[in-house]
Amino acid sequence: MIAVDVGGTETKAALVAGTGADVRAVRQRRRATTRDAEAVVDDVAALVEELRAGTADVEAVGLVVPGVVDEKNGIGVYSANLGWQDYPFVKQVEARTGLRTAFGHDVRAGGLAELRIGNARGLRDAVIMPIGTGIAAALVLDGRVYRGDGSVGEVGHVDVGHGDPCGCGQTGCVEARASSAAIARRYTERSGRPVTGAADVAALVRAGEEDAVAVWHEAVDALARGILLVAALLGPEAVVLGGGLALAGPLLVDPLRDRLDGLITFQRRPELRLAALGDEAGCLGAALLAIDMLEET
Amino acid sequence: MIAVDVGGTETKAALVAGTGADVRAVRQRRRATTRDAEAVVDDVAALVEELRAGTADVEAVGLVVPGVVDEKNGIGVYSANLGWQDYPFVKQVEARTGLRTAFGHDVRAGGLAELRIGNARGLRDAVIMPIGTGIAAALVLDGRVYRGDGSVGEVGHVDVGHGDPCGCGQTGCVEARASSAAIARRYTERSGRPVTGAADVAALVRAGEEDAVAVWHEAVDALARGILLVAALLGPEAVVLGGGLALAGPLLVDPLRDRLDGLITFQRRPELRLAALGDEAGCLGAALLAIDMLEET
Repeated sequence: MIAVDVGGTETKAALVAGTGADVRAVRQRRRATTRDAEAVVDDVAALVEELRAGTADVEAVGLVVPGVVDEKNGIGVYSANLGWQDYPFVKQVEARTGLRTAFGHDVRAGGLAELRIGNARGLRDAVIMPIGTGIAAALVLDGRVYRGDGSVGEVGHVDVGHGDPCGCGQTGCVEARASSAAIARRYTERSGRPVTGAADVAALVRAGEEDAVAVWHEAVDALARGILLVAALLGPEAVVLGGGLALAGPLLVDPLRDRLDGLITFQRRPELRLAALGDEAGCLGAALLAIDMLEET
Repeated sequence: MIAVDVGGTETKAALVAGTGADVRAVRQRRRATTRDAEAVVDDVAALVEELRAGTADVEAVGLVVPGVVDEKNGIGVYSANLGWQDYPFVKQVEARTGLRTAFGHDVRAGGLAELRIGNARGLRDAVIMPIGTGIAAALVLDGRVYRGDGSVGEVGHVDVGHGDPCGCGQTGCVEARASSAAIARRYTERSGRPVTGAADVAALVRAGEEDAVAVWHEAVDALARGILLVAALLGPEAVVLGGGLALAGPLLVDPLRDRLDGLITFQRRPELRLAALGDEAGCLGAALLAIDMLEET
């Protein structure tokens, strides 16, 4: 099995072995994501060739991409970041690699991986929420990842009232204050000091630096309000935090739990957990989609 | 089949005949709801006796109640309005009537009725939203009414930013501006003129009365913002508006569609529909739950 997770900035690929809870990457590759669907297919084909070299038993490819995804028909419906619309990924990748290709959405596939082999195991109703450049969520309902028509789980783009503009055209979005990108950008705007990312801001928060603490506090507040909306509508038993920002661990989870406790009234109080699979979740999820495809046929 | 819908102010009961899309009430009774679970069971037992008089073939009761409901164990977990906690409704009603009793949540049962025999027929992903004294929603996901752990669909209690306090202890709730009760109350507060309900305010809006128009406009804005949140998280193909306020028809739906169009950016744009079953939806849904129970066993 070869799994490829086309991310907004980086594409991760892996040769994956094992089944069930034993699925694991045995060889990995990463490269910067090229914009444009045809260039992405070129990259996927090259990664597949590289990873299958010397391996006889690769039966399928699992591919996941961001944006709006039509899983059933193998089509990338829309990605603003990567610049495609209605592109037939499965058809193209199958033609280039000669391998059957399973197709999915990056966040939902990552949620599937956390559900089957990560920190959402055993949960029936949960929200798995990677926080990175953007924020979205996989919704686990009745023990399955809910797909709807492909445009679900946009918890990064709900209005939580802070009024700041968001790249999506709305104001007050969770993502405009709480994504890794927003945290880094807002720290620099406030302090005048450049940082390489949210991890730098987290380190400054640990050191008690005032601007960093203020930006972190606002991010936590936006996240807590977004989770509160999800709790009112879906009542999940747990929210599983993933992506780069979740690497901050208790520095994120502890104040987030406090803030949520302060906001929640009658809603079911979700347990807050950290995801287990880090930035490999999407790639492992892509492998699981390919395994499912082979088992179904 | 005898169906009973215990509402916040009124209890509706019906002798129901037919199956499938042909389910219909053949004899109906209404009475004011008494607070307290034991009094409710007394009323349910009396209504069942009254409706089954002279009818030989009543096989089961379908009962739906508001609040947090444990369908599986037949327990009314919590109702602030009606004053119960962890009350074993199914056990009590079965003991009193000698009839097997199916049990459910009023809003989800009403959603089930709209899905099977009303204006949500054929929808796979939809939100059915009765607007009355309160506001809540039944979530239809993958063609089924999603139950979760029983605390789902609280779209009346999401913060849409207007800042007014709500009975639930939060501020900015959709319900605090857009429920029938809130519309009537806010009109009177603003104008100093008493009304008997939101229908009076709707009539004044049609006549162009200034205070009524302002209150209506704010209600529509709160509803549109609530629906936008649902669209971001669940991407339903349609939102089906029910309850007393939906009787306003185009006076509600037309400005709501305009407002939603003004707010929506990348989210899937849900069709807005009016529910078909009016305030009988809960009672018909209770009958459907009883039919399902008999068919399953």
